[in-house]
Amino acid sequence: MRPVQIGIIGAGRIGRLHAENLVRTAGVNVRAVSDLYPDAAREWASSIGIPKVLSDYREVVADPELEAVLICSPTDTHVDVITAAARAGKAIFCEKPVSFDFNRTKQAIAAAEQAGVPLQIGFNRRFDPNFRRVKEWVEAGKIGKVHSVKITSRDPSPPSPEYVRSSGGMFVDMTIHDFDMARYLSGSEITEVYAAGGVLIDPAIGEMGDIDTAMISLKFANGAFGMIDNSRKASYGYDQRVEVFGMDGCITADNDYPSNAQLFDDKGVHREKPKYFFLERYSASYVQEMREFMAAVRGGGTVPVSGYDGLQAELAAYAARLSLKEGRPVKLQEISAMEGELAG
Amino acid sequence: MRPVQIGIIGAGRIGRLHAENLVRTAGVNVRAVSDLYPDAAREWASSIGIPKVLSDYREVVADPELEAVLICSPTDTHVDVITAAARAGKAIFCEKPVSFDFNRTKQAIAAAEQAGVPLQIGFNRRFDPNFRRVKEWVEAGKIGKVHSVKITSRDPSPPSPEYVRSSGGMFVDMTIHDFDMARYLSGSEITEVYAAGGVLIDPAIGEMGDIDTAMISLKFANGAFGMIDNSRKASYGYDQRVEVFGMDGCITADNDYPSNAQLFDDKGVHREKPKYFFLERYSASYVQEMREFMAAVRGGGTVPVSGYDGLQAELAAYAARLSLKEGRPVKLQEISAMEGELAG
Amino acid sequence: MRPVQIGIIGAGRIGRLHAENLVRTAGVNVRAVSDLYPDAAREWASSIGIPKVLSDYREVVADPELEAVLICSPTDTHVDVITAAARAGKAIFCEKPVSFDFNRTKQAIAAAEQAGVPLQIGFNRRFDPNFRRVKEWVEAGKIGKVHSVKITSRDPSPPSPEYVRSSGGMFVDMTIHDFDMARYLSGSEITEVYAAGGVLIDPAIGEMGDIDTAMISLKFANGAFGMIDNSRKASYGYDQRVEVFGMDGCITADNDYPSNAQLFDDKGVHREKPKYFFLERYSASYVQEMREFMAAVRGGGTVPVSGYDGLQAELAAYAARLSLKEGRPVKLQEISAMEGELAG
Amino acid sequence: MRPVQIGIIGAGRIGRLHAENLVRTAGVNVRAVSDLYPDAAREWASSIGIPKVLSDYREVVADPELEAVLICSPTDTHVDVITAAARAGKAIFCEKPVSFDFNRTKQAIAAAEQAGVPLQIGFNRRFDPNFRRVKEWVEAGKIGKVHSVKITSRDPSPPSPEYVRSSGGMFVDMTIHDFDMARYLSGSEITEVYAAGGVLIDPAIGEMGDIDTAMISLKFANGAFGMIDNSRKASYGYDQRVEVFGMDGCITADNDYPSNAQLFDDKGVHREKPKYFFLERYSASYVQEMREFMAAVRGGGTVPVSGYDGLQAELAAYAARLSLKEGRPVKLQEISAMEGELAG
Repeated sequence: MRPVQIGIIGAGRIGRLHAENLVRTAGVNVRAVSDLYPDAAREWASSIGIPKVLSDYREVVADPELEAVLICSPTDTHVDVITAAARAGKAIFCEKPVSFDFNRTKQAIAAAEQAGVPLQIGFNRRFDPNFRRVKEWVEAGKIGKVHSVKITSRDPSPPSPEYVRSSGGMFVDMTIHDFDMARYLSGSEITEVYAAGGVLIDPAIGEMGDIDTAMISLKFANGAFGMIDNSRKASYGYDQRVEVFGMDGCITADNDYPSNAQLFDDKGVHREKPKYFFLERYSASYVQEMREFMAAVRGGGTVPVSGYDGLQAELAAYAARLSLKEGRPVKLQEISAMEGELAG
Repeated sequence: MRPVQIGIIGAGRIGRLHAENLVRTAGVNVRAVSDLYPDAAREWASSIGIPKVLSDYREVVADPELEAVLICSPTDTHVDVITAAARAGKAIFCEKPVSFDFNRTKQAIAAAEQAGVPLQIGFNRRFDPNFRRVKEWVEAGKIGKVHSVKITSRDPSPPSPEYVRSSGGMFVDMTIHDFDMARYLSGSEITEVYAAGGVLIDPAIGEMGDIDTAMISLKFANGAFGMIDNSRKASYGYDQRVEVFGMDGCITADNDYPSNAQLFDDKGVHREKPKYFFLERYSASYVQEMREFMAAVRGGGTVPVSGYDGLQAELAAYAARLSLKEGRPVKLQEISAMEGELAG
Repeated sequence: MRPVQIGIIGAGRIGRLHAENLVRTAGVNVRAVSDLYPDAAREWASSIGIPKVLSDYREVVADPELEAVLICSPTDTHVDVITAAARAGKAIFCEKPVSFDFNRTKQAIAAAEQAGVPLQIGFNRRFDPNFRRVKEWVEAGKIGKVHSVKITSRDPSPPSPEYVRSSGGMFVDMTIHDFDMARYLSGSEITEVYAAGGVLIDPAIGEMGDIDTAMISLKFANGAFGMIDNSRKASYGYDQRVEVFGMDGCITADNDYPSNAQLFDDKGVHREKPKYFFLERYSASYVQEMREFMAAVRGGGTVPVSGYDGLQAELAAYAARLSLKEGRPVKLQEISAMEGELAG
Repeated sequence: MRPVQIGIIGAGRIGRLHAENLVRTAGVNVRAVSDLYPDAAREWASSIGIPKVLSDYREVVADPELEAVLICSPTDTHVDVITAAARAGKAIFCEKPVSFDFNRTKQAIAAAEQAGVPLQIGFNRRFDPNFRRVKEWVEAGKIGKVHSVKITSRDPSPPSPEYVRSSGGMFVDMTIHDFDMARYLSGSEITEVYAAGGVLIDPAIGEMGDIDTAMISLKFANGAFGMIDNSRKASYGYDQRVEVFGMDGCITADNDYPSNAQLFDDKGVHREKPKYFFLERYSASYVQEMREFMAAVRGGGTVPVSGYDGLQAELAAYAARLSLKEGRPVKLQEISAMEGELAG
């Protein structure tokens, strides 16, 4: 079987992560990578055997040998790259969020649909072994009808001011994963969001108009309720837990740890902190995410996370932003009906 | 040291529980119990050595030998009994809620204050060894400034329609414990409540105008956020967990189990369900609650849970009720400023 | 129903513990206590309502009102007291070990049998909720045929030299509980013991001819194997765990903790030490032990822990002592066949 | 940096596992593999990019381009291959056990020493993240002086009769890992072994003269004690736990699980079985083992598991075999002093 030929757009942290996972995968050939700073990427690309390093994503998109592209460039480029790649008939994997303007996100989804190419969005947490098992058990009916979903999602340390400035804000950058997880685990659409939040950790984040702490209440179309608990700083490491409660039971998933060794001494019982951050915690999820994208590329089949999924999470993020601003619950319908730029 | 002489008003489930704990306690003498149906209580009272069984609480309050009374009669009698007992100079322990009308609760508190008698409210969960340890660690500064408090509080099975009818509604009957726990663990006052909730378990509860499921978002005066997750039916038993998150860490308390035995077999790893309900889970807390009330009676000192604590939890419950009804966040100030009957 | 009339012989720590549990039990009346130092016991006895304090156990045994006696005096008095109480027709509860000479233990058992009185031995751990659940699950066939039993049993701190001197040695004083637990959980008799052990903690213990650390290998009549791991000092508190492994699975029981609160901070995840020692860990087991002894007294029925059980654990302890001395596995048959004093 | 050139001898399960890990490792080139059935290995070798497939290990050893060889052929070939590879100046990694005759093992070790080549033995469990953390904490003094080491090591299902026949027996095939782990964690040499064991699972294993269940008591040179608990069949999966107890505390390592999801329902609390077998549980340890072997090859430095380590574990296995046969504790000195074939 001929290997799938892949091009990667953007050689930053996440682009390199995907590339390194793909070069170790049988049946895949990473043929080209593009980056605005190609010289900085050349040594790395060579060390893992990627032959071509380009400076313009259009060269990647134009390569007739490539069947699929991974879009790992900055968020504000996503829609243009998706559109170009779709027109070129490439299967597309795009990191989240698709854009900072859900109307443009809709355009990108439409472009992929018109071209008939697969478009997968990078909600990697769906592929985490713990959360996937939760989902399987929910779908197998082990807890009956879902009544609530709770998500704890705390980063180990706040991002730099530079990052915050270009991130789109905490809801769009960080909580978007949790909105997707809430939809994934509940098996239902978020219909309403009430976001309480503030700046409890780093005043510099507040000065840029963002928050670092939030408690978000959700309503789902199937009548269930949800809660997302976010913080930009958990001193004990990356805190990523979920709980789904239903008519017949409850399913939880806990953090992962570097080891399960426990120390009993005269002070008490001790173990290590959870795995530090997403690179450690979600390493297996990134591998599996690519595996399933490759399967979709080969099979011509459905992607596990669609453009629609990307859009719904964005709508929830915008609803959260408006809710926080106005101090009231906001329906996703209200957001979805809006025209024009929201992200300013 | 002469034993403290105690009278108990109301020989229902909770009155008997306290009585049985007290008769096993050194330095305490349960001298009288009153109940509307004294004949039904006589055999029980005799079996544990309570000499007097009366039909009217006023006889208890009038007994000059008694130093303290426990008010375990129905909620709608509490204010009258507190007022009478206060005038008679008795130390008072009253079950929650003080009343179904926070303006009357204020009157009861005022009566105790005027009489200079201790008034302790029955928020027994503050005396649970798990939650108390959480509180101690928070106060010891182990997690720094508190950023959020989360409470999971689910009953094992829904109450009977009769109970629901006279309960005051889920927020006043059940969540009131969680509002108190939120104040206790955060060390701050609740300022705003947003309650999402509905009927997901038992339509009969809905027909009586109550709900059985809720997800309640809180704001605290110190800037922290909170979340209370309530259900009237957890198929796996009483689910009572808390989590306090702060600048420097996080503290959790989990459910208690009848035993910690674990079974490993070809289906997986199994353990028992959590302790079934409050009588099992909180048995130690009821003992400790009485111990500290007795210490307050003897010492003339401060009670661990005051009338003010009772009032604040009631205000939060009413705010939740209004929030649910109107679909918006409600400030406790808004409730506190209201006059007249709210409980209808 | 007339309360069971009880006398307690020996008002040391364990005698007082049983007395305090019994005075809180409905249907039981502790009528008398005897101690070599009656003056020291008088205030305590009065405070919990025991009317008679005597200096000679024979006065207790001779009291025609008493139906049962608890023997909590020093081990070297047990056989004489059992014999006298049996002749007086009292139901007997005796602390472990019955004696320091298993031939005398046999005589005491015979005396009770001849008199037709119940004789229960104080292996309280059988009544611990964790271990009892393990036993129930084993008996319910949840792990099929038992292949092995492992017991971890470590004290939090070594006994005083005075205690060691009169204890009969670690195997007779401490491990005897584990030998009984091994029989209880395996449902089979110990047939052979190999004891490796030494002095790793406190040289003073070695100077008195005893050890403080042991790893003991067991064989059972049903073909199963066992292991007991003893230490006189676990810096993190009382360590009491068991594991039963069988053809179809494995059952474990863990330590109990004062609370289940967990702290997550930048050093890791922390919880308290296990409950400190037997008074904390086994408090519920002592209550249940008395409850079942009372049931046996009332029912005239079988005791849950018999004199035979006491004897078998003693034989295993003596086999361990011989094994350690001679550095070889020792069969219990070899011990049982011995005549004369072994304990010197 | 030029990649290290590697040859692999034996393309069975473990040879392929190492090969697949190595081809994904930067700085390593698997240049050749040999197997008695080269045709069966060709497609696999090609699929992962190994250019040469040979039928005779001597061709591998003779290849002047190779710096290191992995010996994954049957145990009875190990000594000859080690000797040849050592003479050819290759760095050597050899699977356990080195041989079925510890005198031949000594010869192999001598051959490597004379040639001055590194010889690493395949005790992969030393590289497991859980056990390694235990070792680090022991070495960091977190529990003070070590008093005991306990190892639970149970396979999920018994091997086939064919495997048993050529395995050298359970002690040499399976327990050898545990003997090594005991030495690793205690930081001391095993001096004496007492093995109790029998056939409780599969009579066919007994018919071949082997056992399937054992409880092994150890003594260490530093005065500590040990216990190894082996079974060929744990219905709940691979059971691999350790515990090290010392003067100042205790360290445990538990099983690993496919996920940490937990289900709470009306039957209790449930989670998955531990990871099924060594390929799942120890996958990370095999990667790390090769990483450290490669580091030793490059650095000319010391290997993390030496030939001496291999020999000591073999001696303990033979002591266990003799102990089981004769029903007595056996000192390793007694074994080490023996001449001639023991494995018959």
